[in-house]
Amino acid sequence: MSIPVELAELQVKTGEYTWAYLLTVRPEATPHLVSLSTSWHHDGEASALLMSVSAGTARNATAGSVVTLCYPPLNHDGYSLIVDGTASVHDGVAPAGIDAIPEGKALLRFTPTGAVLHRSAAPGFANSATGCANDCLPVDASTT
Amino acid sequence: MSIPVELAELQVKTGEYTWAYLLTVRPEATPHLVSLSTSWHHDGEASALLMSVSAGTARNATAGSVVTLCYPPLNHDGYSLIVDGTASVHDGVAPAGIDAIPEGKALLRFTPTGAVLHRSAAPGFANSATGCANDCLPVDASTT
Repeated sequence: MSIPVELAELQVKTGEYTWAYLLTVRPEATPHLVSLSTSWHHDGEASALLMSVSAGTARNATAGSVVTLCYPPLNHDGYSLIVDGTASVHDGVAPAGIDAIPEGKALLRFTPTGAVLHRSAAPGFANSATGCANDCLPVDASTT
Repeated sequence: MSIPVELAELQVKTGEYTWAYLLTVRPEATPHLVSLSTSWHHDGEASALLMSVSAGTARNATAGSVVTLCYPPLNHDGYSLIVDGTASVHDGVAPAGIDAIPEGKALLRFTPTGAVLHRSAAPGFANSATGCANDCLPVDASTT
């Protein structure tokens, strides 16, 4: 379900959604999610998604090797945009254009490593071109 | 974010949504999700949500102590319904009213243990009545 895409293409694609779920794993190996807004930040050559999270979510996100952003479809029958990546806490002052981080919150920096468009397969559907048993598409091949 | 609710109330609430993400944790402790349809099944005293999943998702779901269903809002500004529970594989023939399970898939039985309505907090929002830093509500206190 994770297919590498050009970063520039992912930026266009995230612009078609409004908010995302951030999925992390708790220390006891159970799933956790929170809904939030993401903002692209470009720092020289690197591009990342920034988001404000609780201290607990920041700990979960930076303890694991991979975290996931899932943008639910605006059209309920549409595709979810699922993005895997790595996370780190952005220390210091929030970059220009990013709201100041409230006390008790952390600014998380998410670096995408792959993305896929996903929706449930219709009954009788076997496998998509991506090999996913659901109706997944590479990010460059569909609209929401 | 996980608040016990009456099962009967949860059944009414899930009826206000159309599909859900099932969140599990992979063996390497990374998050995984898939979108799917859920159906309530009543077996004597017990009530559970049934869903068809891949063999991999079934393995993830039954390896951990807790898995999570997240029903995204029909109205994009609305509440997500997040349900924690335990999962087991339903062996044998699918119950009446449930589609036959395709080869390579498994029928997962999800027993809810708690639920919350969740959405991102507006800027400046501190803490909700549930203690969540986002705008969460007990399932009996809001609409989607």
